[in-house]
Amino acid sequence: MIGVAQGGVRIGLDVGGTKIAGIALGDDGSRLGSIRRRTGWGDAAVLEGAVAAATELIDQLGAPVQSIRSIGIGIPGLIDTATGLVLHAVNLGVASLPLAAGVQAALGVPCFVENDVKAAALGAASLRQDTEPMAYLNLGTGVAAGLIIGGRIWRGARGTAGEVGHLSVDPQGRVCGCGQRGCIETLCGGGALARAWGRGGELPVRDILDAADAGDETAVGLRDDLFRGTAAAVRALVLSADVETVVIGGGLTALAPRIEPGIRAWLRRDAAESPFLQSLRLDERIELLPADSPVAAIGAALLSSALAEIDPFEKEMPVHG
Amino acid sequence: MIGVAQGGVRIGLDVGGTKIAGIALGDDGSRLGSIRRRTGWGDAAVLEGAVAAATELIDQLGAPVQSIRSIGIGIPGLIDTATGLVLHAVNLGVASLPLAAGVQAALGVPCFVENDVKAAALGAASLRQDTEPMAYLNLGTGVAAGLIIGGRIWRGARGTAGEVGHLSVDPQGRVCGCGQRGCIETLCGGGALARAWGRGGELPVRDILDAADAGDETAVGLRDDLFRGTAAAVRALVLSADVETVVIGGGLTALAPRIEPGIRAWLRRDAAESPFLQSLRLDERIELLPADSPVAAIGAALLSSALAEIDPFEKEMPVHG
Repeated sequence: MIGVAQGGVRIGLDVGGTKIAGIALGDDGSRLGSIRRRTGWGDAAVLEGAVAAATELIDQLGAPVQSIRSIGIGIPGLIDTATGLVLHAVNLGVASLPLAAGVQAALGVPCFVENDVKAAALGAASLRQDTEPMAYLNLGTGVAAGLIIGGRIWRGARGTAGEVGHLSVDPQGRVCGCGQRGCIETLCGGGALARAWGRGGELPVRDILDAADAGDETAVGLRDDLFRGTAAAVRALVLSADVETVVIGGGLTALAPRIEPGIRAWLRRDAAESPFLQSLRLDERIELLPADSPVAAIGAALLSSALAEIDPFEKEMPVHG
Repeated sequence: MIGVAQGGVRIGLDVGGTKIAGIALGDDGSRLGSIRRRTGWGDAAVLEGAVAAATELIDQLGAPVQSIRSIGIGIPGLIDTATGLVLHAVNLGVASLPLAAGVQAALGVPCFVENDVKAAALGAASLRQDTEPMAYLNLGTGVAAGLIIGGRIWRGARGTAGEVGHLSVDPQGRVCGCGQRGCIETLCGGGALARAWGRGGELPVRDILDAADAGDETAVGLRDDLFRGTAAAVRALVLSADVETVVIGGGLTALAPRIEPGIRAWLRRDAAESPFLQSLRLDERIELLPADSPVAAIGAALLSSALAEIDPFEKEMPVHG
């Protein structure tokens, strides 16, 4: 059984609002298989979908279930990582789901659950060759970041580390879904941009970029918002936690080649009058992931190591003596 | 010599723009002595002042210099903590001063140097009874924070962790000394408030509060800026690094009883429309230090432990296998 505990295939599932992406990693990190399937709605369907996705991967490998070391799941919402309980995953119709327990009961394999952005941060970190502190900034319907410090997810005191999407950067800005005004998410979140655009469509941010290219003034303004909001998020992450690199991922990176130059240009523009900001070289410290990079699934597969120690840092005080 | 290495008196110096505050701590953290003296201007005078302050403390104790375990110094500017080199301490007329080497050569006692805000953060953490992640937010002429994670100073990748004073929160705001517009420091930094007030005086922020109490509209606006800027700094620290507590110190805390209720009220007001912000209970997560709390000197005295390990976290990646 030592082989099962220390090695073996690790499965990672990225459970999103519309699809589940699954990946199987070998001992050496090689990708042994991958699947995609639609996500169901509600507690039972989400649990069933996760079990089915893992089963499909195991079948694809042709491996006995006993050879599977762990199943990790990244999912939106508030997660109690100690118990694998998922709370308030509103896009999935989940109010309170003991997901780890359910998967473990169904398949007999240890299961770990983490917030999807934090899992993606871990996955993005694992793809890098350095161990510097980094942030993963997710530009999707909403905007949030995950921090990796010392190779581990930094959750903070109450799990809100990386929630820079809800920092207000403009008292005159648009009202955010969170109730504040001028949040970073109102500028560069796909949902907020679609609402501000207001013309429907399957891919409103792409439509905004197309219309901006064609000279539409509203679209140019919203494109600028996307760039300046992302720049503000990068600044917030560096000037607070001082990560070396901000890796940008999420749904909007489907448009990466069209938005990357603008984000860098905005970072340089904001720094133009500030020697202090210039010295930080923020435009050189961002990286955009390619579209559909499976970082959340990879990070989920790595959770079995990452969550082995829930509290990543020694709580030792250098006081008195 | 083991006794000297592991125990003994630790001296901490807080070298500020106008004065040096010194403290001597015993093995058990008890305060054995303290001094104050004026700070000199320029490399030679700053070094001489630090040596004189330490000597005065040692004389006060009546102890042989061999019983002094370490001298720690908190000082403004960019610090290379590995070598104890001080760069760009503009308020002290220091461009580049090898302060640790100079003090060590003069007194024969190991010397450690740290940025004053980071030293104060360590001192503030040592006075607390918990080991939760915390930030020390310094409201002085400028605005900056120090982060304590796992009982240690978190510097970040390039030493800019905690520089929330230079996050812009208003594109229409006042121009900051750093060149940006609408930085948090333009709202709640003593220097920026004094410039915006523009009426001179020894204690301009006190004058602003007095005038606001008397109904002066400009003063009411600046008092609101002080509150909302501080609230923005607290939010930035919690929504990025998610510290449990923000301890507020610095020169403006001389006015603590007059500003604490306003800061709390502003945090509640900003959260009024946002269930998300309300759930963070930020107004319950701040603490104002009493005026002249010697946290920077205490933290400086503790540097010999804190800097023993320059890199506080194990750089271990939970990847592949």
